[in-house]
Amino acid sequence: MRGFFFPRTATGSSSLIPNPPWYYSGDLLTVEYRTDPARVAELLPEPLSLAAEDPGAVALIWADWQSCSGSREELLDPVRSQYREAFVVVRCRFEGRTYSRCVFIWVDKDFAVARGIHQGYPKKLGSMWQTRPHPFAQAAPQIGPGGVFGATLAAGDRRLAEAVLTLRAESATNGFVNGHPMAHHRVYPGIEAGAPDAFAELISSGAAEFSGGQAWRGDVDLKLYESPTEELARLEVHEVIGGYYRQVGVVWNGGTTLARLEEKA
Amino acid sequence: MRGFFFPRTATGSSSLIPNPPWYYSGDLLTVEYRTDPARVAELLPEPLSLAAEDPGAVALIWADWQSCSGSREELLDPVRSQYREAFVVVRCRFEGRTYSRCVFIWVDKDFAVARGIHQGYPKKLGSMWQTRPHPFAQAAPQIGPGGVFGATLAAGDRRLAEAVLTLRAESATNGFVNGHPMAHHRVYPGIEAGAPDAFAELISSGAAEFSGGQAWRGDVDLKLYESPTEELARLEVHEVIGGYYRQVGVVWNGGTTLARLEEKA
Amino acid sequence: MRGFFFPRTATGSSSLIPNPPWYYSGDLLTVEYRTDPARVAELLPEPLSLAAEDPGAVALIWADWQSCSGSREELLDPVRSQYREAFVVVRCRFEGRTYSRCVFIWVDKDFAVARGIHQGYPKKLGSMWQTRPHPFAQAAPQIGPGGVFGATLAAGDRRLAEAVLTLRAESATNGFVNGHPMAHHRVYPGIEAGAPDAFAELISSGAAEFSGGQAWRGDVDLKLYESPTEELARLEVHEVIGGYYRQVGVVWNGGTTLARLEEKA
Amino acid sequence: MRGFFFPRTATGSSSLIPNPPWYYSGDLLTVEYRTDPARVAELLPEPLSLAAEDPGAVALIWADWQSCSGSREELLDPVRSQYREAFVVVRCRFEGRTYSRCVFIWVDKDFAVARGIHQGYPKKLGSMWQTRPHPFAQAAPQIGPGGVFGATLAAGDRRLAEAVLTLRAESATNGFVNGHPMAHHRVYPGIEAGAPDAFAELISSGAAEFSGGQAWRGDVDLKLYESPTEELARLEVHEVIGGYYRQVGVVWNGGTTLARLEEKA
Repeated sequence: MRGFFFPRTATGSSSLIPNPPWYYSGDLLTVEYRTDPARVAELLPEPLSLAAEDPGAVALIWADWQSCSGSREELLDPVRSQYREAFVVVRCRFEGRTYSRCVFIWVDKDFAVARGIHQGYPKKLGSMWQTRPHPFAQAAPQIGPGGVFGATLAAGDRRLAEAVLTLRAESATNGFVNGHPMAHHRVYPGIEAGAPDAFAELISSGAAEFSGGQAWRGDVDLKLYESPTEELARLEVHEVIGGYYRQVGVVWNGGTTLARLEEKA
Repeated sequence: MRGFFFPRTATGSSSLIPNPPWYYSGDLLTVEYRTDPARVAELLPEPLSLAAEDPGAVALIWADWQSCSGSREELLDPVRSQYREAFVVVRCRFEGRTYSRCVFIWVDKDFAVARGIHQGYPKKLGSMWQTRPHPFAQAAPQIGPGGVFGATLAAGDRRLAEAVLTLRAESATNGFVNGHPMAHHRVYPGIEAGAPDAFAELISSGAAEFSGGQAWRGDVDLKLYESPTEELARLEVHEVIGGYYRQVGVVWNGGTTLARLEEKA
Repeated sequence: MRGFFFPRTATGSSSLIPNPPWYYSGDLLTVEYRTDPARVAELLPEPLSLAAEDPGAVALIWADWQSCSGSREELLDPVRSQYREAFVVVRCRFEGRTYSRCVFIWVDKDFAVARGIHQGYPKKLGSMWQTRPHPFAQAAPQIGPGGVFGATLAAGDRRLAEAVLTLRAESATNGFVNGHPMAHHRVYPGIEAGAPDAFAELISSGAAEFSGGQAWRGDVDLKLYESPTEELARLEVHEVIGGYYRQVGVVWNGGTTLARLEEKA
Repeated sequence: MRGFFFPRTATGSSSLIPNPPWYYSGDLLTVEYRTDPARVAELLPEPLSLAAEDPGAVALIWADWQSCSGSREELLDPVRSQYREAFVVVRCRFEGRTYSRCVFIWVDKDFAVARGIHQGYPKKLGSMWQTRPHPFAQAAPQIGPGGVFGATLAAGDRRLAEAVLTLRAESATNGFVNGHPMAHHRVYPGIEAGAPDAFAELISSGAAEFSGGQAWRGDVDLKLYESPTEELARLEVHEVIGGYYRQVGVVWNGGTTLARLEEKA
């Protein structure tokens, strides 16, 4: 039986996702802010703990991606290649090292959901939009001083977040919250009613290859909204740190197990 | 940390799916046919083998569901409750017993994808439609002799299957292919590049509670279409067995591990 | 050139909508309430005026439709047949007679948008959901005392309205606001920049044929939400009149011009 | 009552589309080919006739747009600003002059449908995808020699067209079929059952302002597929003329009536 993910078949051609490495080109709109560190701590299961410095820092990141396998065939049938996402990153500490960790994420394609399950990103479906730069300004900003970009996130027919970023100057960084290797849980609940997890591990992963254009920073207006099935708004905005825009190219090719975890009782 | 599935949080209210049991009310349109048993065998990984009788039998089933948790709160925000699916079931044999097995399935909501991951259904997103019965016939069939129901399946912007079912008479069964406990794989690929599966098991599950109305059988016209990312059409229609329509109510509440599987080399 | 609507071709088979009559089977969930009559008056262009009695009455109606042409072929390819809608109806007066008038409406299919343009319904795309009754109660209410139905409306990735209706008793009516012939404007803006309307008329239409099941009334909880591109919430809920549920079958086959209107200056 | 389009209200803020001028920034992927001129003639109602030269030339164009009103507010809520389209253009002749004419078009937003009704584009909803260029090549082509772009069109859950364009060299043009002012019908069927059109005119319009980057030409592979509700495949590909890629900025600000048309009998 062949196929990286389900469904596995004799040919492997039905697999929802191909074998890594996976390739990405896209635009990142990042908003960083500080919330109550206690709200971050709530999202860090053992054996993780709060980051030592600036533990309440949060990054809310929109990404407009094109992605493919090594065959690049998905690029020619772009319904299989393009997707949008928004995700929330905090930092945490494990065995003396600082990691980034995605605590909430929404995408708009099934292959992106499946990649998230593999990588430990807790992906749901959502509706994400971010203003695109374009060489012609009739209906588009440029990536430069004064460029204004909007970004919105909705799920379950409710708007969850919206941001407006006005670029001001070149930046040495694209923010700091999402700058570490990721520390993610990969968990498979047990099949028996009421059973503990059948599988649980803490893994680390990051880009196998990364290219980035000039990062820009700017002013941000950010709003979060309540939903009965989401907890993004629980990470209240106490202070905006900044906003960033950057175009990037990324390759992902697996990660490393940090710890096999005890089953929950 | 609380929550049956990801994301797990302090409150558990963000979990993409709630704790089982899960409750379903819906309409099933089933088409059964025979294909080359070798094509079925291709979809049965060890330790499964072909069913002893009628090993090439296939059921292609459309379902129009409303579903909820024990709280029933999803029913009042039905974007969280209603979904459509189409799935392909074959039979197989394990340790002397016959099981049903879902080899392909498409749904249109993320919570349904996540439930599938838990239950071992290899769910992708798709676009499924089936004619609805309605008490007023201006634009609807009734469930009875002469009632005509259409059903279509598409994914990746390509149509994969379409069926027309014309009801003829009451039926003692709703078909036989999907009538056994399900034997499904639950697999989590290893996080290291090129690693074997980190977790793999064969499980069995079925309805914890089932209610069904009168089943009807009828004549079927069925067409399958090629797609570069799907293998449904590889299960060629050699002979139509029959078509069925039934309204049902179901409760699902977990399953049983049949075998922990060796990791693939 | 043949075809009721665009695109018109030699065969007519591409027309977005077929020739009337159009046939509908569906379920209506209606909420009636009173708002400030001045807000209703704002939505009544000349030559319309407020209804004489209860001029602030509003009906917010969700409908879950299956529809087709006289050929009924759409029923067998139900992506062309099923759609959901939510619409807002007020009453008005023209030449001494009372009419119903749809002031806002959202649907989820293009053929429904096109039918609205023809009939004078100001249709936008939206996301509408309403709980479905089903014979099996595992995840569904029945149409009867205690049956609870939710309904939601969103557009532009924002939730606009949500209602919960708990059925209490049989009702002699399905409400009164949507009970008159419709008085709608059909307007085509002029193509020159800044030009007045190229075409404008006031028309009346209603069902050519109507069948309805037993109507039920019940208690309603209704919430309206703001959006920068919608004005539903401007029709504030001052007093809920009641909620209703009814299954219906309808045929629509054209209307009548009430007045050709002067072009706006 | 204010508002360019429906619904018209006291504030005008609900109008599905704002007053022109409308602003666009986007990428055009164009495929030009020759079909049987008789198939083009079928799509030209009186008083239009076939173009004098190369009358069977067809352009199938994909566009990935960002658009806004003069306020530019839609750019900050990009669900209201971004849309995709695919459209089919032929040429025709009216009173001795050559015009372009859009005979089929699909878009994915309601505001785009409404703009089409105003401009005489026969818009339906569809699902359109085209590969995006990006500065980082991990999962994207660049606009230059060897850049490969895919484009697909689907509607009604069926794929209608797909193309692959491999760029070869700079081009002096972006093709010729869509290079004239548009000649479009604007038609409003009469409201009475069986009535002739209540309004019909032939209009011309084009860009009020246009900016374009370097056009590129390349090799094309094009496939058209049948659908029971579409006639694109009826414009069979006899000979591919070429493929083009260009980034553009456009302003549209109304058109001119060429002829008020007799009502059809």
